[in-house]
Amino acid sequence: MSHATPGNPGEPGSSGRPGRPGGRPGSSGTPERVYLDNGGRAPWHPLARQAFEQALADGWADPRRLHAEGRRAARLLDGAREAVAAVLGARTQEVRFTPSHTASLHTAVAAAAAARRRAGSAVVVGAVERAAVLHAARLASGGHGGASGGTGGAGAAGEPGTPVPVDRLGRVDVDAMVAAVGAPGVALAALQHANGEVGTVQPVGAVHDAARAAGVPLLVDAGASVGHVAVPDTWDLLAADPADWGGPAGVGVLAVRHRVRTAPVGPEDEDPWAPGGVSVPLAFAAAVALQAVESDRVAQEARRRALVERVRAQVSRIPDVEVVGDPDGRLPHVATFSFLYVDGEALVTELDRHGFAVGSGSACTASTLEPSHVLAAMGVLTHGNVRIALDRSTTADEVERFCAVLPGAVSRVREMLGVGGL
Amino acid sequence: MSHATPGNPGEPGSSGRPGRPGGRPGSSGTPERVYLDNGGRAPWHPLARQAFEQALADGWADPRRLHAEGRRAARLLDGAREAVAAVLGARTQEVRFTPSHTASLHTAVAAAAAARRRAGSAVVVGAVERAAVLHAARLASGGHGGASGGTGGAGAAGEPGTPVPVDRLGRVDVDAMVAAVGAPGVALAALQHANGEVGTVQPVGAVHDAARAAGVPLLVDAGASVGHVAVPDTWDLLAADPADWGGPAGVGVLAVRHRVRTAPVGPEDEDPWAPGGVSVPLAFAAAVALQAVESDRVAQEARRRALVERVRAQVSRIPDVEVVGDPDGRLPHVATFSFLYVDGEALVTELDRHGFAVGSGSACTASTLEPSHVLAAMGVLTHGNVRIALDRSTTADEVERFCAVLPGAVSRVREMLGVGGL
Repeated sequence: MSHATPGNPGEPGSSGRPGRPGGRPGSSGTPERVYLDNGGRAPWHPLARQAFEQALADGWADPRRLHAEGRRAARLLDGAREAVAAVLGARTQEVRFTPSHTASLHTAVAAAAAARRRAGSAVVVGAVERAAVLHAARLASGGHGGASGGTGGAGAAGEPGTPVPVDRLGRVDVDAMVAAVGAPGVALAALQHANGEVGTVQPVGAVHDAARAAGVPLLVDAGASVGHVAVPDTWDLLAADPADWGGPAGVGVLAVRHRVRTAPVGPEDEDPWAPGGVSVPLAFAAAVALQAVESDRVAQEARRRALVERVRAQVSRIPDVEVVGDPDGRLPHVATFSFLYVDGEALVTELDRHGFAVGSGSACTASTLEPSHVLAAMGVLTHGNVRIALDRSTTADEVERFCAVLPGAVSRVREMLGVGGL
Repeated sequence: MSHATPGNPGEPGSSGRPGRPGGRPGSSGTPERVYLDNGGRAPWHPLARQAFEQALADGWADPRRLHAEGRRAARLLDGAREAVAAVLGARTQEVRFTPSHTASLHTAVAAAAAARRRAGSAVVVGAVERAAVLHAARLASGGHGGASGGTGGAGAAGEPGTPVPVDRLGRVDVDAMVAAVGAPGVALAALQHANGEVGTVQPVGAVHDAARAAGVPLLVDAGASVGHVAVPDTWDLLAADPADWGGPAGVGVLAVRHRVRTAPVGPEDEDPWAPGGVSVPLAFAAAVALQAVESDRVAQEARRRALVERVRAQVSRIPDVEVVGDPDGRLPHVATFSFLYVDGEALVTELDRHGFAVGSGSACTASTLEPSHVLAAMGVLTHGNVRIALDRSTTADEVERFCAVLPGAVSRVREMLGVGGL
């Protein structure tokens, strides 16, 4: 194994420079490399880097301390909360920073459900929610948070604890979700704003209406949508993901409406949403990145939607492909396809060899090599799946090159599998 | 309230630059400012900044993805684990990154205790452990993780669940701890390597011997010591804090010996120690900073120990002061004092006004304005307390200036309280 180890700063001539990994020449870092896997972990927005540097100089101290340095860090953190709140349509004091988007979802489900223990313990979820929501819901409902098969899938509708099914486009069954939310014993409901794997936007407005009527708080996972489309105001708790909008990883955002009661679980801490506190520079960079992407969001939305339409149309001409997700109510920057007679990992590797980075299968559990619970719940092919997510910096030329190279890559993978003639 | 809000990048002439907070002129940012609160959140080591920049360019992608960018991030993360492991005397695969030092302690206590549920549920802790350990231990033992009064204090020794008392120097009672560890029903024991508030080094070797004999794993909180003194090898789980050694906040380190069984609690996740994964650039910067401080640790240890000796000697000449902590077995960079007839917050503020940033009371709960459970357990004055922690960059001149200004500051605070003549 050749590791890229940090250099030894004690040795002359070394300065902590990491060894360059021994990748193939031309496979990375070269100008022609096209990165199309910008969902959940996009490169930092240039203004985020700048903000991070500034906050590192001004806000490195512990914001809980009483001296000037601590107070300065606290003001930067307050400013970051204020900026995020403005975009989310929340009050400053309703916004919390957490260690990650996954942590936001875990704590939100646990804390909101725990506060309503007297109403019940059921957590109603859609079948294509993120694994973090499904696992946390199962744990809060008294399950084990992820026995095998527990990550969703559209089981028998109506059974308590069964995720609400979706249709073939990935849209949650509104009637079933409304019915489930109104049933007795429900502590919390969770529905994503949009699905990050297939792009489908969910009917959060209708479900929020039903949840309000039933007195059940609704957690909206907006981790794939904030920064890309307008944020809905139909939520009681909302989680958003800085790493998805060009901010840093290592920090998450959770907004909790003032009226929503929460009872954080876990050991007592001064900050139960981020035990030990958050990194002020990360939070500040996240906020600046969000402001930056919001400032030209509408233009970027239209531009990337047109590129995605182009990709979806081009890909649909490849034989034996299913273009996945809602063609209309969808994220502007995500496109997903399932190819018959293709192994998804093999296709990712083949595209990678030709300079294109794409995602495969489940966006959240790609490394487990398990079939995506999202695709399974939709009833579409779980294998032979790739996803692209366009960054703001993705160019039309890059998209054209992807469209040009994809059919050949699919053919080659099919040939390798001995199904080239099909 | 004047917040430092992120700039609006949509406005011409603005570029995400944070507004400078409206502090008093001369109170911050000027060369003469002396920062002596480097415990738990020190400024980044210069090499850590450099490493962060490099890793941001090379390792921003999700290390779990299959393409070249993901693999490159994974290699940087592996390299960071390897570098940290070498310093801690651990195997690479025994090292995990977590969201924070507090998160390391919370998860370590919960996961190690859960794996030994059949042996019992008691978690034996010293009375001056960090609040995170005390709260997590209480929760794992079946308590509530922090009812009032639950953060420690030396209660009646011998009662199950009561923290093991310490002497007036902050040293845990070895005989009592050995007896507690050997009692039936113990799942886990936790003892810090050194106390970050008062500097006292604990007898982890003797306690680890007893724990091994009893088959009880020992968690060592080395969050105040790693990077400052040699790391002991007498641990089964060891938590260390990058933000304390000049690495970033927003990442923690937890090493778990191969032989120790753990059963992480909380929702299932691919990385139960850092749900959602860690920021590779933060982890890499943490590792580079640790290598950097280790490279001249022995020299820095001697240099800072001499400065601390100087401070302790000078301060002991101020009337009605107690110089706190073990005079011999102590951290080289921490000095703590309790002044009779002084309010700690007032003294911190008075010193801040004169350009000196110091800590007060409990290092971990300074903002709660509650008396330090550490000082209470030691039986020393909990009010009128200040702590200084010297950075590697702290100069002898800065220390001299602090020694020169402190007696006057103490007098002025005493005069304000009407006890100047005492």
